[in-house]
Amino acid sequence: MTKILKIGGSILTDKNKPCSIRPDQLTRVAEEIASTPDNLVLVHGAGSFGHIPAKKFGLPESFSRNGLLETHQSVVKLNEMVVNSLRDAGVSPLPIHPLSCILLNNGRLEKFETAPIVKMIAHGIIPVLHGDVAMDIVGRSGIVSGDQLVNHLGKVLQAEIVAVGTDVDGVLYMGRIVTDVSREDLGHIDEELEGSAGVDVTGGMRGKLMELLELADNGISSIIFNANKKGNIVRALNGESIGTFVRHSK
Amino acid sequence: MTKILKIGGSILTDKNKPCSIRPDQLTRVAEEIASTPDNLVLVHGAGSFGHIPAKKFGLPESFSRNGLLETHQSVVKLNEMVVNSLRDAGVSPLPIHPLSCILLNNGRLEKFETAPIVKMIAHGIIPVLHGDVAMDIVGRSGIVSGDQLVNHLGKVLQAEIVAVGTDVDGVLYMGRIVTDVSREDLGHIDEELEGSAGVDVTGGMRGKLMELLELADNGISSIIFNANKKGNIVRALNGESIGTFVRHSK
Repeated sequence: MTKILKIGGSILTDKNKPCSIRPDQLTRVAEEIASTPDNLVLVHGAGSFGHIPAKKFGLPESFSRNGLLETHQSVVKLNEMVVNSLRDAGVSPLPIHPLSCILLNNGRLEKFETAPIVKMIAHGIIPVLHGDVAMDIVGRSGIVSGDQLVNHLGKVLQAEIVAVGTDVDGVLYMGRIVTDVSREDLGHIDEELEGSAGVDVTGGMRGKLMELLELADNGISSIIFNANKKGNIVRALNGESIGTFVRHSK
Repeated sequence: MTKILKIGGSILTDKNKPCSIRPDQLTRVAEEIASTPDNLVLVHGAGSFGHIPAKKFGLPESFSRNGLLETHQSVVKLNEMVVNSLRDAGVSPLPIHPLSCILLNNGRLEKFETAPIVKMIAHGIIPVLHGDVAMDIVGRSGIVSGDQLVNHLGKVLQAEIVAVGTDVDGVLYMGRIVTDVSREDLGHIDEELEGSAGVDVTGGMRGKLMELLELADNGISSIIFNANKKGNIVRALNGESIGTFVRHSK
């Protein structure tokens, strides 16, 4: 039974300062993971390590060789810190860099060699992936989000638990957490999600929900939960339905 | 017309000291590459960054999660220095880590997603690969040599120039450079290659020759040359047949 945990970049970094890690959070996240580490894939966001250089070079719209290198090297730095924190917490991680194994087609996954990931899990190793730049069939600098990786891996690995940790309590609609959402509800709440801004629903929440609804279309349910609250990662990995449950339509 | 250049670990590092870079060599290699950088894939060996930790953990024979992580992180450090040197020399490199995209079967390549590499070359980017650890279908800690990567990429990319830089002038037989070798000659010189040791033919030369003969079986010729001598990388990339020419039989 495979579990996929996503930890948003906003949990681990200060989104407004370049390359600013939140060391206490990093340690706490690693320790929560280490308390229930079996059959797990970890995906983390790029946070300020990715979004700031990507913006500087106009990615993904404009093609920039320097932008690809600088953004990649920056997110790899964050990935190395995550990997080392997990190692220090007593588990066995190995990094997987999307740039090395993924080809995009207009921003969507076209090729993704997942055989090494499958093998790592079988050996009790936690593969640690991250939002990254990637080559794109169309001539732009590709960016692949951690959320798209979660969607794809959820399907490939037929994951039984998919838990997406953010810095909010779940999908918010009219000031309240939506505890259960399916594609059928989307017409109803979509405008509200797009319209809202700031603390309640970030621009990222809509994209996140789209990825997880696509995953749900393939029969894999998931949750969006608050990974800033201590203990929530353990609860999520144990299969508790906290936050918003994203389910298959009937 | 694609070119593949391999730079042996002994060029860039001091094989006897852990993680010891040879900075002057690194700069020179990068500058030679930058003078003729088109349609190029660079593969570098692991040198002391790989062989020393691999030995410490008994790789590849024994399976070690810590050994996989420590060896990988060490060779990635070397790779980052190579990438940064190329960037400083004015070309556009991007790293490709075998651990992320390769699955081995008893030490031989079983799966290798090369689509990102193909796309990088098309965009004027130099993919920079390296000898690395990798997951293996059989239960051992896989190691994939730079030479095996050269063999595989030569075939996949139908490379027109394959140049393997070492710290000797080519394949040595009875104290002389063999200027031309094919599989037919192997029965003749093989014992000598295995028997010899030390400065003339390293243990690595036989494995290197086996990879390049397999490549030659697929119709792709290559050279083994001395990359320690200034100017030789440029000559090799310009298609000069220096050192030992490894050719298709007949």
